[in-house]
Amino acid sequence: MEMEEYRSEKLHEECGVFAVYDKSLQENVVADAYHALYALQHRGQESCGMAVNDDGVISYHRDLGLVNDVFTKDVMLSLPQHGKMALGHCRYAKAGIPRRSEAQPLVIRHIKGSMALGFNGALLNGSELRRKYELEGAIFHTGTDAEVIAYAITRHRLKCSSIEEAVSHAMDELEGAISLVVMSARKIIAARDRKGFRPLCLGRKGDAWIVASESCAIHSINGEFERDIRPGEIIVIDQDGVRSDESRCGGKSGLCVFEFVYFARPDSVVDGASVHVARRRAGAFLALEHPVQADVVIGAPDSGLDAALGFAQQSGIPYGIGFLKNKYIGRTFIQPDQKLRENTVRIKLNPIAATVKGKRVVLVDDSIVRGTTSKQIVQLLRDAGATEVHFRSSSPKFLYPCYFGTDVDSRENLIAVNHSTEEIEKIIGVDSLGFLSIEGVKKIAEGCGLDFCVGCFTGEYPVDCSKCENVKDKCECKLTDKNESEKA
Amino acid sequence: MEMEEYRSEKLHEECGVFAVYDKSLQENVVADAYHALYALQHRGQESCGMAVNDDGVISYHRDLGLVNDVFTKDVMLSLPQHGKMALGHCRYAKAGIPRRSEAQPLVIRHIKGSMALGFNGALLNGSELRRKYELEGAIFHTGTDAEVIAYAITRHRLKCSSIEEAVSHAMDELEGAISLVVMSARKIIAARDRKGFRPLCLGRKGDAWIVASESCAIHSINGEFERDIRPGEIIVIDQDGVRSDESRCGGKSGLCVFEFVYFARPDSVVDGASVHVARRRAGAFLALEHPVQADVVIGAPDSGLDAALGFAQQSGIPYGIGFLKNKYIGRTFIQPDQKLRENTVRIKLNPIAATVKGKRVVLVDDSIVRGTTSKQIVQLLRDAGATEVHFRSSSPKFLYPCYFGTDVDSRENLIAVNHSTEEIEKIIGVDSLGFLSIEGVKKIAEGCGLDFCVGCFTGEYPVDCSKCENVKDKCECKLTDKNESEKA
Amino acid sequence: MEMEEYRSEKLHEECGVFAVYDKSLQENVVADAYHALYALQHRGQESCGMAVNDDGVISYHRDLGLVNDVFTKDVMLSLPQHGKMALGHCRYAKAGIPRRSEAQPLVIRHIKGSMALGFNGALLNGSELRRKYELEGAIFHTGTDAEVIAYAITRHRLKCSSIEEAVSHAMDELEGAISLVVMSARKIIAARDRKGFRPLCLGRKGDAWIVASESCAIHSINGEFERDIRPGEIIVIDQDGVRSDESRCGGKSGLCVFEFVYFARPDSVVDGASVHVARRRAGAFLALEHPVQADVVIGAPDSGLDAALGFAQQSGIPYGIGFLKNKYIGRTFIQPDQKLRENTVRIKLNPIAATVKGKRVVLVDDSIVRGTTSKQIVQLLRDAGATEVHFRSSSPKFLYPCYFGTDVDSRENLIAVNHSTEEIEKIIGVDSLGFLSIEGVKKIAEGCGLDFCVGCFTGEYPVDCSKCENVKDKCECKLTDKNESEKA
Amino acid sequence: MEMEEYRSEKLHEECGVFAVYDKSLQENVVADAYHALYALQHRGQESCGMAVNDDGVISYHRDLGLVNDVFTKDVMLSLPQHGKMALGHCRYAKAGIPRRSEAQPLVIRHIKGSMALGFNGALLNGSELRRKYELEGAIFHTGTDAEVIAYAITRHRLKCSSIEEAVSHAMDELEGAISLVVMSARKIIAARDRKGFRPLCLGRKGDAWIVASESCAIHSINGEFERDIRPGEIIVIDQDGVRSDESRCGGKSGLCVFEFVYFARPDSVVDGASVHVARRRAGAFLALEHPVQADVVIGAPDSGLDAALGFAQQSGIPYGIGFLKNKYIGRTFIQPDQKLRENTVRIKLNPIAATVKGKRVVLVDDSIVRGTTSKQIVQLLRDAGATEVHFRSSSPKFLYPCYFGTDVDSRENLIAVNHSTEEIEKIIGVDSLGFLSIEGVKKIAEGCGLDFCVGCFTGEYPVDCSKCENVKDKCECKLTDKNESEKA
Repeated sequence: MEMEEYRSEKLHEECGVFAVYDKSLQENVVADAYHALYALQHRGQESCGMAVNDDGVISYHRDLGLVNDVFTKDVMLSLPQHGKMALGHCRYAKAGIPRRSEAQPLVIRHIKGSMALGFNGALLNGSELRRKYELEGAIFHTGTDAEVIAYAITRHRLKCSSIEEAVSHAMDELEGAISLVVMSARKIIAARDRKGFRPLCLGRKGDAWIVASESCAIHSINGEFERDIRPGEIIVIDQDGVRSDESRCGGKSGLCVFEFVYFARPDSVVDGASVHVARRRAGAFLALEHPVQADVVIGAPDSGLDAALGFAQQSGIPYGIGFLKNKYIGRTFIQPDQKLRENTVRIKLNPIAATVKGKRVVLVDDSIVRGTTSKQIVQLLRDAGATEVHFRSSSPKFLYPCYFGTDVDSRENLIAVNHSTEEIEKIIGVDSLGFLSIEGVKKIAEGCGLDFCVGCFTGEYPVDCSKCENVKDKCECKLTDKNESEKA
Repeated sequence: MEMEEYRSEKLHEECGVFAVYDKSLQENVVADAYHALYALQHRGQESCGMAVNDDGVISYHRDLGLVNDVFTKDVMLSLPQHGKMALGHCRYAKAGIPRRSEAQPLVIRHIKGSMALGFNGALLNGSELRRKYELEGAIFHTGTDAEVIAYAITRHRLKCSSIEEAVSHAMDELEGAISLVVMSARKIIAARDRKGFRPLCLGRKGDAWIVASESCAIHSINGEFERDIRPGEIIVIDQDGVRSDESRCGGKSGLCVFEFVYFARPDSVVDGASVHVARRRAGAFLALEHPVQADVVIGAPDSGLDAALGFAQQSGIPYGIGFLKNKYIGRTFIQPDQKLRENTVRIKLNPIAATVKGKRVVLVDDSIVRGTTSKQIVQLLRDAGATEVHFRSSSPKFLYPCYFGTDVDSRENLIAVNHSTEEIEKIIGVDSLGFLSIEGVKKIAEGCGLDFCVGCFTGEYPVDCSKCENVKDKCECKLTDKNESEKA
Repeated sequence: MEMEEYRSEKLHEECGVFAVYDKSLQENVVADAYHALYALQHRGQESCGMAVNDDGVISYHRDLGLVNDVFTKDVMLSLPQHGKMALGHCRYAKAGIPRRSEAQPLVIRHIKGSMALGFNGALLNGSELRRKYELEGAIFHTGTDAEVIAYAITRHRLKCSSIEEAVSHAMDELEGAISLVVMSARKIIAARDRKGFRPLCLGRKGDAWIVASESCAIHSINGEFERDIRPGEIIVIDQDGVRSDESRCGGKSGLCVFEFVYFARPDSVVDGASVHVARRRAGAFLALEHPVQADVVIGAPDSGLDAALGFAQQSGIPYGIGFLKNKYIGRTFIQPDQKLRENTVRIKLNPIAATVKGKRVVLVDDSIVRGTTSKQIVQLLRDAGATEVHFRSSSPKFLYPCYFGTDVDSRENLIAVNHSTEEIEKIIGVDSLGFLSIEGVKKIAEGCGLDFCVGCFTGEYPVDCSKCENVKDKCECKLTDKNESEKA
Repeated sequence: MEMEEYRSEKLHEECGVFAVYDKSLQENVVADAYHALYALQHRGQESCGMAVNDDGVISYHRDLGLVNDVFTKDVMLSLPQHGKMALGHCRYAKAGIPRRSEAQPLVIRHIKGSMALGFNGALLNGSELRRKYELEGAIFHTGTDAEVIAYAITRHRLKCSSIEEAVSHAMDELEGAISLVVMSARKIIAARDRKGFRPLCLGRKGDAWIVASESCAIHSINGEFERDIRPGEIIVIDQDGVRSDESRCGGKSGLCVFEFVYFARPDSVVDGASVHVARRRAGAFLALEHPVQADVVIGAPDSGLDAALGFAQQSGIPYGIGFLKNKYIGRTFIQPDQKLRENTVRIKLNPIAATVKGKRVVLVDDSIVRGTTSKQIVQLLRDAGATEVHFRSSSPKFLYPCYFGTDVDSRENLIAVNHSTEEIEKIIGVDSLGFLSIEGVKKIAEGCGLDFCVGCFTGEYPVDCSKCENVKDKCECKLTDKNESEKA
């Protein structure tokens, strides 16, 4: 359910990053970045961009809009066609009106030359560092964390002998969720924070090395997945190949579990676990935790489908295709008639009566945020003749803010903060309602070697969030592992 | 599989029509037509348009592009906001470059006033009538059948006392597949040819009457499906309500069976049969006709999913989600690198390795046209680790042309014309291959009271196609029921 | 003064036409038509189009907008690059909202093939003929005279052996102002009505023959002006060269005198007279008819400049540059602040204080229609320090409607209909005011062998206008030469 | 002659700036900035932008394109409607491809809040300062001088108690041509370098204060010109009105004389002298310096017209209108046919044969840069029948580079560097040729109290240009008044 009107309802990932270094110039790195951005588009749909490095000269283009809108034929032709490196980025802005000037990659010139930077995550100490740099005379063009990171690297670069050393020192200074790709005149550096909040992985395609937020981007350009970049690891790619600095690795990790539930693409494998399988397992656990007798199990398209299949297989209740999603509804869809506004969901999501009419229906969706959309979807099923509707959420209740790069709603809007399960049942109009347990959600990512951040469900975060001043008012952090916080 | 690159591979429906008459001005007919066009967009994606009748004055807008592109906010505001009638149309051009001037609805002025016209189908005697009218001094602005129909109606209107009478006489003169909606100053007339090649149905929403190609359009605007318009029936809607002329009804019908297999939307009910159920049944019959031992059944998105589910349920082999379709690939997707062109499918369709790796896979798709795309999809599964791939097509082999409004490829491009099943197996690289039988496909639409046209599979058509001069060279018509041909 | 806000104030010419026939394929006819349209753009700025004939196949493109907007690089590349003939047209719609479907050239298919048609003028019996054809079963897609003319030609073509013969008969049937260019599969035909209301001329460029509304279009593509097409003449251009039918020539003509005053481009020579010289002479006559003692003579840009120079030279008062016109104000200029609306002229027209401060100024403009703009311009001069402003109009007072292809305002809006010269002086705030006399305006086109239509000044027209039903209510025709009316 | 193809031929001014402070909120500052940008568009046509200050919060929009393209209705509505301050800028990029990210106003956040900055001029020590700041850890997003200036101000702001104090110190550090407007949360500061290379003036409109590059911008919004800002002066506008710091004023100034010859708008008054009068005087001096016997004097549109009038009045030879400039040629004009390329001028500039045929013509233009265009214009006159063509340039020969904000061509392209007057006569094909003398050009700006920079004619600049490293190779500075250089 990633549609327009759910914007306020669904969590949004904030970015996808991609980089390629093709030392033997066998690949068209611009084409690779272009295709990879399509594969990562689900991670950010407000703006996108690409920087190309042609023998040390960095050209770039970025704008608001989907890859499809931003990278027209003319734009593609205007980029260098024979570069050795490219860096791509897609973005969903955390707050406020999307600004073109905040699109990434950020491309700047500093003391040792040019640098492009793509960032996925969120800084805990962004405001603090911003203030510090401003006191030293820095000027900022945007309100983004990316610009803070650029300054952090630049400051260290003044004293370091290499860009990778500067990135290393910067990573020590920066706190929060950081999956970062930097392109300098001669190198690509990729870094992941010690907790590994956001995914980042390494691939190759012939002689070319690839860094991407998700493995699906590597496969989309016919590359091969090599391995995940470890929490705390810093990778340097240059003419000599790949080098790794693992000195910051180790300790308890905190990969965002919602990557498996909703954010990542089902065909990706994140830190060792298949996203599709994780969702099927979430559905299966749901069936075990919240059993029900019914005639058909359906998923809310698209993100509830995998979990619905898992629920059906575990429960033995037949899987059904309950909805058709209108794929022609685009960004410019308008509601000319105010009266029809409440029926918007009806235009976008079309129940298949043949599946649900006269049936007891289990409806599986990935989550309930505000409840408004869930209520509308349930109503569609009732109108199409479902006799019972049993709602199963493949994630636990959202109760706390996220400080690590998603736009979880303010607490007053989260339905589960203010209402019990029974009340929510009544509000959204279902016969029964079940949320996956926290224990359950922690087990879905079979094969994943990392620990998880489940802070939005529990309020307990892998690091100290007290520095998050701009969200302090609604913050209710219960520090879990203080001793492991980044700066400890 | 309705994606860009399959344009030459997939059959295309040629149009969707919609009209609404709201005598009590309770509805916003412009909003209704706009939403309904979204619901019918799958029937025609090259151009679309809308005509609005505000107290006898007809305004219109039409252009190349999707509803989303054509009906911008400014365009919507420029249309009359308080009309009683609206007529919408979306179109896929049969041949050649799409032309803006050929977008519908066609709006013309004739002797008794203005008229808007939306047409889905194809005339067998279009060229013949065109020549006849030209000999009488007619001028044509386009090469469309719609303009021929407009002339036919106008000619009769000179001698008739009402527009509906003129439409009746025109229907006697026109041959072929005709689902037609006409809007005059005071009435809406809907007509369907005697064979009922293309669907057309009636709905209502409060006091307003609705005519649409498919029931999904009625439901999308929260209307109620009333009934199908019968083959041969002519409906008149005006201030006094709905009147029907059924004098042309009766005799053997010939509804296009491919409407169930692929064209119509799964949530539509066409002439009494659910499209979704028909597709599931097609899958179930396939399982009976071409059984196989395997580990998972997957569908090619989106049109193979329903049949795959039917196959799985019949066979007992688990249903799986085998592909993720990239929903961000739009019309402007480009292939910057020639080398990558063969991998286009890889960008658009992403196999989920977790589903297919190490498995014997049954792949269900709606059809095989040229075979090129099927081959690529099969290869994707092999690359993702499938150990066996068994292809099942939920339609029989395409062997003959269609004269009734779809763009079935020229015979030399149809893989089944030139190759045996065994040869096709080798070409597309599968371990086994099965097509639904003609007997099977005729039974899928459970509850549908009509006979079917299966001419593209058998070469036997419900009417004499010998007049189809522009395709005569490749025509191999075997007349089946000459006595029932339209003009007999 | 052809700026945006003067739309309601200034008369508008309704069309420009152009055609080229290059038998030896030495020229790029698409490029020629493109450039010529730029040269004719002043004759019509609402829509434009081009049809290209490549070995009998006619392709075309037309749309709302300036040449600059409509003929993008992609459009240019989509047109045939090796055609022998091209026909271009630019248009200003007479009434109502501009419609894309009414853009020309009109391209139709009739009994003997395809035909493209470009028309400048206005039919007196358009409604009559339209009704007649409708009674014979014709349908109309637009409300344009061009479509009526296409029908007239087509009707005759049924009985004639050649397209030129059909055009000849049509010209006998059509009444009004007609400068027409027709492109058939093998020929270009150009025709001008017996009065010659609108200009039309012949040129050549190497082996290629050119027809254009004005000589400036011929010169802009480096061609040579050959001669004017005579009132009543019909020209045929084909592989054998140019043939002329002058059987309809002779009798009293009626060229629109306002072509010299305002419509035509100063660098054109129309029917033997230089437009620039005609305007200078208008200014000189004004000086003789309405002498004044002053310090500087300035023109209202751009159309008043030539006459101002003539006034200055005749009177001996120095010529000055009184205004700068802002050339960056485009179609999308907006007035965000309601309060500023009255100052719009101030943005677009900037007085040069150094020229007018402390001076007695003679301001020459081509006409006064409503008076609103004149008042604003005068105020600008006062604000810039002019001590006296003496307004001189190089045309007489507008008092009557025009039926021949210009959009002269309805009588109630014409300031001179309701006010005496003394009253107008007060309204627009000038110290003195003089209009060129009717005798004067008839003499400005030195060297022109034709008689003039001055109906908008006198109400006496060269033909009977009583058939002009759609303007009958405000018509006050005083028939002058009934015996010479087109159909007499 | 500011047309497209003269881009490489004509000098370009690099920017126009505008700011308004309306303490009583009587004006719509967004509307004012919008209109003022139209009035300043001639100073920069590649990009434009506007920043609005609504109670301390700065919003902005900027993009490549003309005001007409960039400030659409939607953009205008998206800006705050009730701000007290606005800052506008239009820009012509010095070198290379125009970049959207380099459009101004530059809006940044620094230690004390937000700041918007609009700059017209060029820094001599830009590279030097850039390097210095980078060594202190600064990062740059663009290659513009504006960003260097922002850093300079920010660095001083760390130690100063007010923004105006920081600007003052920055002005001491910056060298070159600087007309600068800064908008902080509560103030507008305007500063002009000690030489006053570029114009800057002060106006008012009711309670609102206005700063603009030229007085025409003030008049276009119906404001009143107050006075010029003095070379070296710094103005502060806030709630308390206007304060001035004149401590840097005095000493020899160096206003660019080419502002009078070509850059500024004729209706502007720059530092006390009317631009229109200056051009007329230039023409008059030309007549005195290079007399000739001829029949008519014409100007090359638009910038040669004023000087032509001056030449005519001084010499007694009649003034004529020799050319019509096609005002419909826009940015997207294309030359579809390679053969026609050399005739581009013919499309854009149309000689009026009636003026020049059989005449001895004096053609006045503002300058000759490469000579290519001059040659084409002369040929047009010959083709139109001129018997003699005498070219008069209202500026001296361009012989040296400009370091102060114009894009004078590289020396090897300047025709006068490599050819004598006699040679140029032959190259451009004229019967005689005369350039205004350097003494002459220094006298044209009657009433202007400043000294002039005529470095591009003489190679002698008002300040030491040796720091101009990026142009050092072609620099031939002859220092004139070292003791007065900015940092001395």
